[in-house]
Amino acid sequence: MRKSRRLVRKTPLLAISMGDPAGIGPEVVLKSIASFAKRNDRPDFLAIGDLGALREAANKIAAAPHPVEWHRGDALPSNALGVLALSALAPDQRRPGHPGRAGGAASFEYVETGAKMAHDREVDALVTAPISKEWWHRAGHHFPGHSEVMAKIGRSKNWRMMFAGSELRLALVTVHVGLAKVPRLLTQKNVFDTIEILDRHVRANEGAVRPRIGVLGFNPHGGENGLFGDEERRIIAPAIERARQRGIDAFGPLAPDTAFVKHKGRFGFDAAVTMYHDQGLIALKTLEFDRAVNVTIGLPFVRTSPDHGTAFDIAGRGVANPSSMISAIEYAWRIVKAREAAGKRAA
Amino acid sequence: MRKSRRLVRKTPLLAISMGDPAGIGPEVVLKSIASFAKRNDRPDFLAIGDLGALREAANKIAAAPHPVEWHRGDALPSNALGVLALSALAPDQRRPGHPGRAGGAASFEYVETGAKMAHDREVDALVTAPISKEWWHRAGHHFPGHSEVMAKIGRSKNWRMMFAGSELRLALVTVHVGLAKVPRLLTQKNVFDTIEILDRHVRANEGAVRPRIGVLGFNPHGGENGLFGDEERRIIAPAIERARQRGIDAFGPLAPDTAFVKHKGRFGFDAAVTMYHDQGLIALKTLEFDRAVNVTIGLPFVRTSPDHGTAFDIAGRGVANPSSMISAIEYAWRIVKAREAAGKRAA
Repeated sequence: MRKSRRLVRKTPLLAISMGDPAGIGPEVVLKSIASFAKRNDRPDFLAIGDLGALREAANKIAAAPHPVEWHRGDALPSNALGVLALSALAPDQRRPGHPGRAGGAASFEYVETGAKMAHDREVDALVTAPISKEWWHRAGHHFPGHSEVMAKIGRSKNWRMMFAGSELRLALVTVHVGLAKVPRLLTQKNVFDTIEILDRHVRANEGAVRPRIGVLGFNPHGGENGLFGDEERRIIAPAIERARQRGIDAFGPLAPDTAFVKHKGRFGFDAAVTMYHDQGLIALKTLEFDRAVNVTIGLPFVRTSPDHGTAFDIAGRGVANPSSMISAIEYAWRIVKAREAAGKRAA
Repeated sequence: MRKSRRLVRKTPLLAISMGDPAGIGPEVVLKSIASFAKRNDRPDFLAIGDLGALREAANKIAAAPHPVEWHRGDALPSNALGVLALSALAPDQRRPGHPGRAGGAASFEYVETGAKMAHDREVDALVTAPISKEWWHRAGHHFPGHSEVMAKIGRSKNWRMMFAGSELRLALVTVHVGLAKVPRLLTQKNVFDTIEILDRHVRANEGAVRPRIGVLGFNPHGGENGLFGDEERRIIAPAIERARQRGIDAFGPLAPDTAFVKHKGRFGFDAAVTMYHDQGLIALKTLEFDRAVNVTIGLPFVRTSPDHGTAFDIAGRGVANPSSMISAIEYAWRIVKAREAAGKRAA
C-alpha cells in the first residue's frame, strides 16, 4: 500500500492538522494554504480536522480555499481543499475562543491520525496547527504536547525539539521545564544525543555533508574556566569530544551571550545545540519573531509546526498572523524535497 | 576644592583608565579619543595609566593623540592627551600580550584613582578600559571586577550592572555566577532593588519622567502558571507589585523568549530587568554586538566601560575594535550632559 500510494503522487502531499477548533488553527491553516495558491511551485494540501469549523473560518477569509470532505483513497479535489473530517462538532463545540472537551478530544484525533498517515507515508509530511494541552488533558489525553504523540507513533526514543528561522537551526537539550531543574537534567548522554540527532537531521535534510554544529555552554562566559559553574567541563566538553570522535564536526562550549553574533553576515555554525529553552529562543525570537518553526527531529517522518499557541483570545476575529504557519509549511516542504532529491524515503 | 575645580571647567572632563598595560586597553583608548577629535561637540579627556605604554601604542595608530604627562592641578594640554601617569613600567612589564603582576598592580591603581577622582568630582565621569581579574588577584587585589571597586569608593551597598545598547537598557539581578546558583540568589528584595535602581537611573539620566520597566520571568514561557517553575509567582510578581506600590511603572513577569521582540520598531519597555546574565546579554549582543556598554548604576558618580575583555591574544597588533569603547565614552558623556541639563550633581 505504501508504495502504490506513493507512486501515483507527483507533487508532495502535506497533511495539516487543524488544531483546537476554538483556537486560531482553522484560520491560520486556511490563510496559509491560500498564500500558496499564488505560487507556481507548491505542494498539495490535505487538512485533517472538522469540516464545519473550517467552513465557518473560510467564510471570513478572503480567497480562502473551499473545504470539501475527502475520504482516504479518493483523489484529491482539484479546486478545493480536501478535508479528512474526523469530527463533526456542533457549533457550540467549536465556538472560537470557547474551548472544550469535545474540541480537545477531536484535536487529539487529528494529530494522532496525521502522525500515523505521515508514518505510513500516506502523506509526505505533517504540519500541526496549535492544540491546547489543557484541553487534551481534560479530554483524557495525557501527552505533554504534540512531540510526544509523534514519538509514540514513530516509536522514537530519542527525538528533540528543533527551532528553525530563516537561517538559525537550534536543537534544545532541555525544553519545557523550570530553569532550576535544568542542571540536574544536563548529562553527557543528553548533550551528545542532541548533537548527534541534530547532525543527522541537518545532513539528511539541509544538504550539508558535514555541518558545523556549535554547542553552547551553560554558564555566563561559558563558566570562565570553572569560576561560574562547571557544567562545561564536566558535561558539555566531554559530550562534544565524544561527538568529534564519531566524526561529527561539533565545537564549543561557546560563550552563550556571543554565540549568536554574526561575523561577516554569517553565524559561526550551520546549526547549534542549546542547553535550555530560553538560551536558544531568546536569540531566535529576537532575530525573527514571526517566522520561527518548531520541528521534531529524530522521527522517521517529517513534522513541523508554527511556534505559537491557540491564541483563544483572538480566535474567530480574522486577525491571526499566518507567518509562522507558512514558515512551518515551507520548512516541511523543503525537507520533503531534499529527501526526494536524495532519493531517500526516510532519514 | 570641588566647587572651584568644577567652575573652571566648561567642557565635561572624562577620565579613562587605561586597563591592563598588556591588553588592548591602551590601543582602544587612543583610537577612541582619536575618533572624537573630528567631532565638533566633544568632552575633554584625561587618561590614567602608563605613559610609556600609551606612547608605544600611539606610535602604531594613525592620528593618535600625543600622550603627555599631566599632574593634578595643572591645566589640560590643548593639543595632546594629558596622562595621569600612575606607573612607569619597564618595557618588559608592559609587553602586549604578556601580562604580569606589575601590570596587574598598576591597572588596579588606575581604576582606584579614577574612581576617587570621579567620586570627588575632579572628573565628571570614569570610563574604564579592560583589566585582567586574574592579574589583579595575583597582584593581591581581591576584587571580582571593576564594579566592586566603584562600589567601595562610592560607598554604595546597592548597585547593579546595567548594559546599554543603542536602544536597550538592561539591569541584571544576578551577574557572574553559575546558572545553577541563580535560583537561590533570586529574592523579592533583590528583584525589587534592581527595579528601583534601574528606574532611578533612567529617570535621572535618560530624561524619562516615568519609565516603563519591563521585568522578565525566569522560566520558559514565564513558568506557564507554575507548570515550569514558580519563581515568577513566589518572587518576581510580588517584587513588581511592590515597585508599583512605590509608583514605579514596572510590569511583568514577561515570557523571556518574546520579551525582546519589537512591535512597530519599538521594544515594549523603556528599560528591562533580567534575572541572569545570559537572559539579557544573549538578546543585547545578538542585536548589537560591538556597541554594548557596561554601566554601573546605583553609584554616586558616573562609570561606564566597554563590554569586552583585555584580549591579550590580539594586543599590540593594532587590530582591536574600539566601537564598544567609543560607545562607553558616548554613554558616559550623555549621562554627564543629562545631569548638567537637570542641574544635578548626582543621581
